[in-house]
Amino acid sequence: MKFNKVLVANRGEIAVRIIRACREMGIYTVAVYSEADRDALHVRLADEAYCIGATASKDSYLNLTNIMSVATLTECDAIHPGYGFLSENADFAEICESCNIKFIGPSPEAISKMGDKSVAKQTMKDAGVPVIPGSDGLIEDIDEALMLARDIGYPIVIKATAGGGGKGIRIVENEEMLIRQITAAQQEAQNNFGNAGVYMEKFLTGMKHVEVQILADQHGNVVHLGERDCSVQRRRQKLIEEAPCPILTPELRKEMGDAAVRAAMAVNYSGAGTLEFLLSPDGQFYFMEMNTRVQVEHPVTEMVTGIDIIKEMISVAEGNPLSISQEDFHINGWSIECRVNAEDPERNFMPSPGEIKFYLPSGGPGVRVDSAAYQGYRIPPHYDSMIAKLIVWGATRDEAIAKMKRALSEFAIEGVHTTIGFHLKVLDHHRFVRGDFDIKFLEEHDVNDPNS
Amino acid sequence: MKFNKVLVANRGEIAVRIIRACREMGIYTVAVYSEADRDALHVRLADEAYCIGATASKDSYLNLTNIMSVATLTECDAIHPGYGFLSENADFAEICESCNIKFIGPSPEAISKMGDKSVAKQTMKDAGVPVIPGSDGLIEDIDEALMLARDIGYPIVIKATAGGGGKGIRIVENEEMLIRQITAAQQEAQNNFGNAGVYMEKFLTGMKHVEVQILADQHGNVVHLGERDCSVQRRRQKLIEEAPCPILTPELRKEMGDAAVRAAMAVNYSGAGTLEFLLSPDGQFYFMEMNTRVQVEHPVTEMVTGIDIIKEMISVAEGNPLSISQEDFHINGWSIECRVNAEDPERNFMPSPGEIKFYLPSGGPGVRVDSAAYQGYRIPPHYDSMIAKLIVWGATRDEAIAKMKRALSEFAIEGVHTTIGFHLKVLDHHRFVRGDFDIKFLEEHDVNDPNS
Repeated sequence: MKFNKVLVANRGEIAVRIIRACREMGIYTVAVYSEADRDALHVRLADEAYCIGATASKDSYLNLTNIMSVATLTECDAIHPGYGFLSENADFAEICESCNIKFIGPSPEAISKMGDKSVAKQTMKDAGVPVIPGSDGLIEDIDEALMLARDIGYPIVIKATAGGGGKGIRIVENEEMLIRQITAAQQEAQNNFGNAGVYMEKFLTGMKHVEVQILADQHGNVVHLGERDCSVQRRRQKLIEEAPCPILTPELRKEMGDAAVRAAMAVNYSGAGTLEFLLSPDGQFYFMEMNTRVQVEHPVTEMVTGIDIIKEMISVAEGNPLSISQEDFHINGWSIECRVNAEDPERNFMPSPGEIKFYLPSGGPGVRVDSAAYQGYRIPPHYDSMIAKLIVWGATRDEAIAKMKRALSEFAIEGVHTTIGFHLKVLDHHRFVRGDFDIKFLEEHDVNDPNS
Repeated sequence: MKFNKVLVANRGEIAVRIIRACREMGIYTVAVYSEADRDALHVRLADEAYCIGATASKDSYLNLTNIMSVATLTECDAIHPGYGFLSENADFAEICESCNIKFIGPSPEAISKMGDKSVAKQTMKDAGVPVIPGSDGLIEDIDEALMLARDIGYPIVIKATAGGGGKGIRIVENEEMLIRQITAAQQEAQNNFGNAGVYMEKFLTGMKHVEVQILADQHGNVVHLGERDCSVQRRRQKLIEEAPCPILTPELRKEMGDAAVRAAMAVNYSGAGTLEFLLSPDGQFYFMEMNTRVQVEHPVTEMVTGIDIIKEMISVAEGNPLSISQEDFHINGWSIECRVNAEDPERNFMPSPGEIKFYLPSGGPGVRVDSAAYQGYRIPPHYDSMIAKLIVWGATRDEAIAKMKRALSEFAIEGVHTTIGFHLKVLDHHRFVRGDFDIKFLEEHDVNDPNS
């Protein structure tokens, strides 16, 4: 069915992005907003807009009942969840289905499967997608652990199953250490998390975060659109993304792409999705997780493939076949995205909400700005601190870097602190310039020091 | 030689465009400005900026002496003239040469040859480029005129050599009329222009304005980058341009492209140039003139070829060979440009200078804005009325039109009248939608009436 009206269950730049796609497709849009977002750009740009609750996300952007009420009352055919908020909430997808409103994304089952890390890992293993070698579940028996460690090879990392965010992790170099550390790790896990369960994984270093974009329709067609290198991260937060990945060969691209397609097929996927992998310097890649939604960094893929991922999501949700086949896919040039945030890099990236006193986004050839900001807009302190995604295209990586530096240097934002200066330093760092960086890059190098 | 510093002898969006290209190439820029342009964006973006005189163009942007003084004192290697002002002034190119400052454009000789309409026409004829059939010079003898008219075929148009802008034109259907009208036309020309000279041309109707972009280096290499359809004009002023042309076949593209390359070779051209043709519905094309500079509408070509024309101009001026060969050229998708002017379409497009009270350019995928405007900027009444060039890219013409409508509808400019609403009407007109329009489109159709 052709959608007549779509509700956009999000805010900020991604809500604006979806409204733009709908408008180009001749689809009416309904925006929803919290009390803090009355003056937001997505409210201004949509055909209709409704307040769905108080400032706190749980009262508005996560308020299933109010969102479904607006969708029903305004007779929307579908809901686009964007990223974050309800985008990977299987219950929400199911409620949409039961209300006969199309959820623009995969099935509740696919969301659930990929949302549970251990189910996801097993599903990927079964589909022949490489996962990080390690214990299948918790370590119950030290002898088994020793045997497995011999298979995997040292160093090994022991992780608390209830841990996360870098906590509850021990690196183990040999058998003697392993025997000692398993017991210690279990005790520590019990003390810290109230759960003694630990598991084992191969310890990986020098890894890049490389993810593969896939698109799937409801007729069983799946294509991959190549990869993005998102290794420039600060505390697991992506800051700069690019497509393609500087170290990927066409063979490895095909191998990772094929794996991503198998993964999507294994869960009867439809819509846009991303397989996140760790990639080692010697070309080994390991499944981390699948994001069953559109990602912040989707534009770099759009810039080098010419494919509009949001439009494609909407089109396949309407029941149309994919507009492209795998043979049509090819990469043209290079694209980089910088997330320009209202944060103060001099003060540990502290959020810097407030009124934008002057605003002039970058322009000219090869520059794309995805943003919900405008001059006079007051960035609320309640949500994320993104002001704009600045995306550039160049014929080569060098040209893309030069263009990004030009675009960053002319991007005028006054009234709040921004990460523009920080991005300029990263782009000048010799490791970034050479494409020689892994996920520890910002941890291990001081971008203020060109020799670091 | 690699340029270290370039003077930009222009203002407005094209000055900003050139500064951006230089910055991406690692070249320092010097802006020049009139007293009215102290707050202009090109002044802010350049590395250095100097006032070169009073508001009137003749005192500043056409002030050769002052511009050359700045270029010399700031030790510029080259000058980019943009379009308009001094860009097609052979004397200026020659003065640059004599000062050992590279003029980023063709030789003074090429500018001169193409600047003189009759020399240009003869040069094109000699190069085998089709020109509009007609008398080689003035009509001296009626018998010769009758013979020529028989060759060309009626209707014929008689034009006063001193006329122009649609004045001093008579359309003639047959021999009897021709005999009568030549004498009458000569008398009228004498009375109106003080010059009795008239010449004859084939009368052409249903013509499109189709121009071919060429690039040439100093080593004899010339490529064409395909065509632009610029038929949407109001009083010979282009308003909307697109690439490719909706009615061009690959064969005709090759034929016109080859002719454009021959034309450029005939005058030892180097730099960027445009061959303007009239194209008849049956695929006959005729040389009108050559613009020996970059054109306002160059971005649509950039969008479908991926080639940065300004960078290429600078690079070939440095003495480098072209970065592309004719075999590399291919057209990808569709691009449209709308000139957003500070004019009031309701009041005969009267200029509407003044302060921009709110400004938020369009953004998102496939949208490019080339502009020197910003919120708080006061558009001076002294120069052209352009606020921004809005350029879009789509995979197909239909997508490009939808994208342009979306981009126009979100382009927020308050404080002055603009042509945004007018563009939206043109894009909705059934003739435009079908690509079925010629240079008389806006004259013969009322865009306010969808049935016209």
